[in-house]
Amino acid sequence: MPIMLEEIYEQPQAIAATLEQEHAAVAALVSALREREIRHVIIAARGTSDHAATYAKYLFEIVMGIPVALAAPSVFTLYDAQMHLTGCLMLGISQSGQATDVVQTLSSARAAGALTACITNVPSSPLTSVSDFTLLCHAGEERAVAATKTYTASLALVALLAGQWSNHAGILQGLRALPDLIRSVLSLDEPIAQWVERYRYITECAVLARGLNQATALEAALKMTETSYLVAKAYSMADFLHGPVAIVRDGFPCFLYAPDGRAYPSMVELALKLRERNAEMVVFARSPEILDLARRPIAIPVEVDELLSPLLYIVPGQLWACHLAQARGLNPDRPRGLTKVTLTR
Amino acid sequence: MPIMLEEIYEQPQAIAATLEQEHAAVAALVSALREREIRHVIIAARGTSDHAATYAKYLFEIVMGIPVALAAPSVFTLYDAQMHLTGCLMLGISQSGQATDVVQTLSSARAAGALTACITNVPSSPLTSVSDFTLLCHAGEERAVAATKTYTASLALVALLAGQWSNHAGILQGLRALPDLIRSVLSLDEPIAQWVERYRYITECAVLARGLNQATALEAALKMTETSYLVAKAYSMADFLHGPVAIVRDGFPCFLYAPDGRAYPSMVELALKLRERNAEMVVFARSPEILDLARRPIAIPVEVDELLSPLLYIVPGQLWACHLAQARGLNPDRPRGLTKVTLTR
Repeated sequence: MPIMLEEIYEQPQAIAATLEQEHAAVAALVSALREREIRHVIIAARGTSDHAATYAKYLFEIVMGIPVALAAPSVFTLYDAQMHLTGCLMLGISQSGQATDVVQTLSSARAAGALTACITNVPSSPLTSVSDFTLLCHAGEERAVAATKTYTASLALVALLAGQWSNHAGILQGLRALPDLIRSVLSLDEPIAQWVERYRYITECAVLARGLNQATALEAALKMTETSYLVAKAYSMADFLHGPVAIVRDGFPCFLYAPDGRAYPSMVELALKLRERNAEMVVFARSPEILDLARRPIAIPVEVDELLSPLLYIVPGQLWACHLAQARGLNPDRPRGLTKVTLTR
Repeated sequence: MPIMLEEIYEQPQAIAATLEQEHAAVAALVSALREREIRHVIIAARGTSDHAATYAKYLFEIVMGIPVALAAPSVFTLYDAQMHLTGCLMLGISQSGQATDVVQTLSSARAAGALTACITNVPSSPLTSVSDFTLLCHAGEERAVAATKTYTASLALVALLAGQWSNHAGILQGLRALPDLIRSVLSLDEPIAQWVERYRYITECAVLARGLNQATALEAALKMTETSYLVAKAYSMADFLHGPVAIVRDGFPCFLYAPDGRAYPSMVELALKLRERNAEMVVFARSPEILDLARRPIAIPVEVDELLSPLLYIVPGQLWACHLAQARGLNPDRPRGLTKVTLTR
């Protein structure tokens, strides 16, 4: 069993531990956010963590109406910008806590007057040393190069922070139910291992979602790119129709993440358009309507609030990437030329 | 001659006209920005215009230290977020002024207390009607589906706004020289028409840059995707090394945009890594050091301030996309299934 698959299975436990043990740390951060009247958030992250940042952007804006910017670390690290950051929270996300440019971004932001906080899986890392507050993933050491359990644990911390900051009962209750929901979704492991066979020789694909699950599309595409070396490109459904849809010809593979919720009708509209172009659609959804349009429907067996759906819907995407790599004769634990910690200045 | 190529050639004139005729409109907006003590900017845009927004994010942050967020329009249009936007500028960018979700985002932002402004090529459009200030591209009607001259004219307005807002003499002087610099770069038209031959059967590629030219990588990738139907994926060099570099095997095509400036050393570092992996590199640069590492060096014949380099470096990328489409037997003016105006709710 690949380590990646083992770690996919550890996610319910990692999320449960994170929620239980970080409640107080999140509460302390929320007090500071209120006291300092924080009205803007900037998030610095790279790779998988940047997809957790994308989720945070949607969730904070939707639930709290607080504008969120994703930091361009090079603005701080290469261009030495002197930013005005009073009233801002600068949140760094890094599994290892070592991403050099994220650390430097937080350090500069703190000097520019921002409150700083981080989400990481490693206590006492360079990132925690420049953060006023640390929220810790309790995922255990992540050994596979392709991050899985630290991604969903980071998402859980993002949701916990939004839930406490806005006193959002739906999010806080929904989070408690998530570990069991993810356990149900893991039942897709075996069928997915069969279904990937058809895609053994795939070389390129589009991964599509809208709204909150934009994070899911980005992360699912990255997992396939990292472990199966195919050019998987994520798009917001809205941006996709603005140009890239031109690539879709007979049989072009498209992966759609379409949980129930506000974004769902747009995804049905997209699926109908892709069907007209005779695309090969793999659809992750709960509603039969859109599943019926797919060449390979992947029925998610449980209901989940759209606000929390990115924590659940990425799981079959992780399974898909892991099994696809194996079907292609690759070792998902040893992607070509990748290391676990990436240090970019 | 394809309309797209005609319009590529119209860019020096479009930029000159835009700079000349919009000076006063930009000055009026700058007065309002100062009077209302605007300290945050959010930009709403789709497709090519979103790449102009990416340029604006880097430029405003680097030059003025003002944090810039790229809006997720669905936050407003699907999720009805109630945003707190006092002290914010919400800037909409849309060639046609008709992008439904951008219009709705500006309208919601205005109701939430933001100052609103837009950059568009069409006066009296739905977008101008929800904008307190309009900055107009004087590019003439754009007939090709793949946007070129409205993109660089939008970039010119972004730079003019940054230059006036920050009283940045370098930017304002540099802008005046740009039309002539672009004319020089258009001399690459004929050689590029030859060089694309080698890439007639390309199906996928990575387009790479860092910092300010992230916008250039995104836009160059989109042009190739739209007109040549290949999966061209843009990455920041820093994100690329965090995972996607795994796709690079012998002969994998990588396009690098590496003008002189702060981001240049990172791009050399990247080129060395790609060379180790035996990638096929096409490099757009001025410095011989990085050009020497390329399979196909594309030497940019003029010097330009890095702050303005995205206006210049995209031009050979546009030429490349247009000629590549023709080499592949496609009509760059009629991308499969695209329309000029995309209406997404």
